[in-house]
Amino acid sequence: MIKKKVYDILDIAIHHQFVNIMAEKPTFKDILDAAERISPYINRTPVLTCSSLDSMFGAKLYFKCENFQKAAAFKFRGACNAVFSLSDDLAKKGVATHSSGNHAAALALAARLRGIDSFIVMPKTAPTIKKLAVEGYGGQITYCEPTLKARETTLEKVINQTNATVIHPYNDYRIIAGQGTAAMELLEDIHSLDVVMIPIGGGGLTSGTALAIAGVSSKTRVIAAEPEGADDAFRSLKEGKIMPSINPHTVANGLLTSLGDLTFPIIRELVEQIVTVSDKATIAGMRHVWERMKIIIEPSAAVPVGALLEKKIDINGKRVGIILSGGNVDLERLPWNL
Amino acid sequence: MIKKKVYDILDIAIHHQFVNIMAEKPTFKDILDAAERISPYINRTPVLTCSSLDSMFGAKLYFKCENFQKAAAFKFRGACNAVFSLSDDLAKKGVATHSSGNHAAALALAARLRGIDSFIVMPKTAPTIKKLAVEGYGGQITYCEPTLKARETTLEKVINQTNATVIHPYNDYRIIAGQGTAAMELLEDIHSLDVVMIPIGGGGLTSGTALAIAGVSSKTRVIAAEPEGADDAFRSLKEGKIMPSINPHTVANGLLTSLGDLTFPIIRELVEQIVTVSDKATIAGMRHVWERMKIIIEPSAAVPVGALLEKKIDINGKRVGIILSGGNVDLERLPWNL
Repeated sequence: MIKKKVYDILDIAIHHQFVNIMAEKPTFKDILDAAERISPYINRTPVLTCSSLDSMFGAKLYFKCENFQKAAAFKFRGACNAVFSLSDDLAKKGVATHSSGNHAAALALAARLRGIDSFIVMPKTAPTIKKLAVEGYGGQITYCEPTLKARETTLEKVINQTNATVIHPYNDYRIIAGQGTAAMELLEDIHSLDVVMIPIGGGGLTSGTALAIAGVSSKTRVIAAEPEGADDAFRSLKEGKIMPSINPHTVANGLLTSLGDLTFPIIRELVEQIVTVSDKATIAGMRHVWERMKIIIEPSAAVPVGALLEKKIDINGKRVGIILSGGNVDLERLPWNL
Repeated sequence: MIKKKVYDILDIAIHHQFVNIMAEKPTFKDILDAAERISPYINRTPVLTCSSLDSMFGAKLYFKCENFQKAAAFKFRGACNAVFSLSDDLAKKGVATHSSGNHAAALALAARLRGIDSFIVMPKTAPTIKKLAVEGYGGQITYCEPTLKARETTLEKVINQTNATVIHPYNDYRIIAGQGTAAMELLEDIHSLDVVMIPIGGGGLTSGTALAIAGVSSKTRVIAAEPEGADDAFRSLKEGKIMPSINPHTVANGLLTSLGDLTFPIIRELVEQIVTVSDKATIAGMRHVWERMKIIIEPSAAVPVGALLEKKIDINGKRVGIILSGGNVDLERLPWNL
């Protein structure tokens, strides 16, 4: 049923050329500050429940709907926190990144809301829908060849011309603090969660979530779900050092990235477990959410649901929060129709 | 882009063999009573907003999400009100209907919640997904040939055997009162609406909505949106008498039915306007809601959005409530992929 594909390795984010703005590992206070900073701009997303999924899993599930976030992904929280953390002097030169995914759109929108420029380097092979999203939010796109080298050198050129601040999609403490606000809202709305599950790619959402939960509800376990075909976080935790994915392939194309040197230590310290999930289970989980909850989530958001379908953790009788990370899907290429 | 199809005329509901339980036209009090009666069983559905659709239409739109209702359609409200209105003596004999749509599943679920039998006559050609839904809710299906006559005679046989009470999908005052509770909740949550829009088929939702609004907010205009290919309500209001559709065809397959003798007079009295909508606009509206709101609605629910895309009414600067009637869609046959 699932035709595995090798995805563009260029989507794997690169750390070394990105400047980290915040020098110290974020504290819980940084997440509170981020929440206050971004609150005028973000959607306070709802938490939905679904009695038929509860019956199916014998648990009480609480879905934090970041697919309803602006730009349709949690990424907007981090981008917003980074953009609105900049000094006026830095901000007026704009922000930049290379990305062909949700971070590009999120950063462009955050920049527009602050009234500053955003410079997005995208491979010219990026899907039209992604290009249109970035353009729609006012991002200034520079196209490049679809190679990592071209992305890096093009971004360097853009920065040299503009002096814009580069914002990394996850290996940046302000991004991490921003992503942590989703879990904080979830814990405000729903008390006494036994477990919170998130999908893991580069680890921005996971590390932010773990920091937020450590600050609010230390009894709540944090479990990240990772595609089998992009299991660098699983291997990294096992080995005790970052083990990047070389040729990741998964339908969850928001999770192709590998952990960064800022996200890894937080995850190693605070995340109880990383479970790996087959694409088949992820697609089945996605379809369950579409059919039973009537909401649109992207494959990456369905990985924790896939983990439950594969019984990777025991949640019987438990109260489980799941952050549905995003809802950007090509409606003409749904995974069950491929 | 749109390939028009002739849909099964058998889906057009038939009135004469159905018994009306409530003798008098419902009052606002009946809607309040219905709301109280069904409140333990229904989902209090959320009202969502979408800033990008607001910008597109130059208005403030409030979407009442009946796609999140149990059995994924407003139909559950009416079915629940009818089922829980029955005396114990009548109830213990069960309820029955012939339907291949959302009413069948809604009635089966309502009956299960009351702990009584439901007997559903379905054409054997009904989509598997619909059969499974009815079975899943414990409905006892009797299959028949896909002709109107077979549906009627089979239902008659079932009733003779069981003495079950037939519940018509819309031409029943208890159904009408139940459907009116969606608008009542909308008006409780959102004040000072200038317009409320609903899709119209047999008129159960429209007449219930109009009665609710007349009772709460007499300045709010009620506008129903109807597919061009099933425009009996539009023609009936124009002619001042019921003008059934003969060969209705539309992608909005929940709206193939024609007005009943109980819904028509209420609609004639209280509905300001019925606008007709092309299937092309309905599909575009559906896609807009999927892409921008990240929620799943069925074509029938998208007809009011289609009406806005076709500029059938002027909502500039207005506060507009839209009842998204349901979310039952075949995910393998999305209209933009056909």
